[in-house]
Amino acid sequence: MTYTTITAVIIIIGKEILSGRTQDRNIQRIASDLGRIGIKIQEVRIIDDDEEIIIESINNLRNKYNYIFTTGGIGPTHDDITTAAIAKALGKKLVLHPQAEKLLTEYYGKGELNEYRLKMAYVPEGATLIPNNISIAPGFQVENIFVMAGVPKIMHAMLDEVIPRLKKGSKIISNTVTAYIAESKIAGILTDIQNKYSDLEIGSYPFMIDEETPRSGTNLVFRGTDESKIKMAVTELVNELKTMNTEYSL
Amino acid sequence: MTYTTITAVIIIIGKEILSGRTQDRNIQRIASDLGRIGIKIQEVRIIDDDEEIIIESINNLRNKYNYIFTTGGIGPTHDDITTAAIAKALGKKLVLHPQAEKLLTEYYGKGELNEYRLKMAYVPEGATLIPNNISIAPGFQVENIFVMAGVPKIMHAMLDEVIPRLKKGSKIISNTVTAYIAESKIAGILTDIQNKYSDLEIGSYPFMIDEETPRSGTNLVFRGTDESKIKMAVTELVNELKTMNTEYSL
Repeated sequence: MTYTTITAVIIIIGKEILSGRTQDRNIQRIASDLGRIGIKIQEVRIIDDDEEIIIESINNLRNKYNYIFTTGGIGPTHDDITTAAIAKALGKKLVLHPQAEKLLTEYYGKGELNEYRLKMAYVPEGATLIPNNISIAPGFQVENIFVMAGVPKIMHAMLDEVIPRLKKGSKIISNTVTAYIAESKIAGILTDIQNKYSDLEIGSYPFMIDEETPRSGTNLVFRGTDESKIKMAVTELVNELKTMNTEYSL
Repeated sequence: MTYTTITAVIIIIGKEILSGRTQDRNIQRIASDLGRIGIKIQEVRIIDDDEEIIIESINNLRNKYNYIFTTGGIGPTHDDITTAAIAKALGKKLVLHPQAEKLLTEYYGKGELNEYRLKMAYVPEGATLIPNNISIAPGFQVENIFVMAGVPKIMHAMLDEVIPRLKKGSKIISNTVTAYIAESKIAGILTDIQNKYSDLEIGSYPFMIDEETPRSGTNLVFRGTDESKIKMAVTELVNELKTMNTEYSL
């Protein structure tokens, strides 16, 4: 079976995540939505909003993967430097995008488009806009880089606009078996199944009793592009769990 | 005022985060706890549990920052490859750590320490253990690298053990003003304050009305090591907000 993998990296820009002040809520959403269309996130970087670091990250990563997705740093304030840094990384001028200017003028009203708001209408030369109906100020796409807002609600709106523009890979199917057993007791069985089904990625994720989960156990995740193989591997595991009288759910 | 910055990077190892299946709950905890003792997270990488990628990341980063903290991939199953990969990155042998073996034998009972459980007693040569009282299987420190579990509850226990071993930097103080105003309306004021207090990092983080927040507004975060300067900068902002009749909270 042939399949196509489209790869991507997420770059989260902003010291509010690095300092621990804010819990990231964008990575999981981007990774899940892209996984659904066969785009695999190969890595995530969370970096400071520092021009040199942004430039270095963009230039190290833009030829390594099919796509870069960034979040954060495209607002009106002094700490919003993503757009200018990306333009610089690509050796492109920052230009006023007429459609972005129009959108912002309509939204804020004439005379209310101060210099800081107008800053959000500037993009690297050749960029296309990524509209959002929440805050109006657009993100943009330049080359294979999609530049989105950091506020989750706005990021979601932008991501929905971006998805139809992307190449689709072979759909990655994921099937989870939750077994109420310590992973160390089934490690041998899992190794055997992984060796037999080398096309699949089989992950073992133990969970502990805590506020959210009343029991401990292990999630066994089977991922791949061949649904029939996933089914066969899951069946083998389930048969072993039955033999061991281990409770499980699918 | 002189101050010391101790720097660190977090490497989250595991495809369950990259695929979007699991929401990371470790970054924020590590970053906050370390921030409190003056250690600044300069970047975070989330990478696949792939030997080559782990080796490359460790070797690229270990001389760049004071410390590396990793989470994930130290359990008993086939996909737990962090320990072996880090040993390889450092050119060290994997050795059975007698104290780890003893802990695991006591915990599982004699005859129950199968080869997969015993795998968790191996560490790179010269490593010291990071105990945890939750799952017993230890993490380890080797050189400036702290290798911890991915399960949040276990990671927390390990992090508490690690913190006393670390050099402390100048404490980073953070003060947040929540203003119920669009950030684009105070961008100019913020720029002026940032220019005046160039030692401080002033961040502006808008928030939208959603399930969690009934109003929209902007969090203005002042970070630095000089408390009196932070107070002065906050006072300047608050005075401006009062002049504008903007509601705020401290």
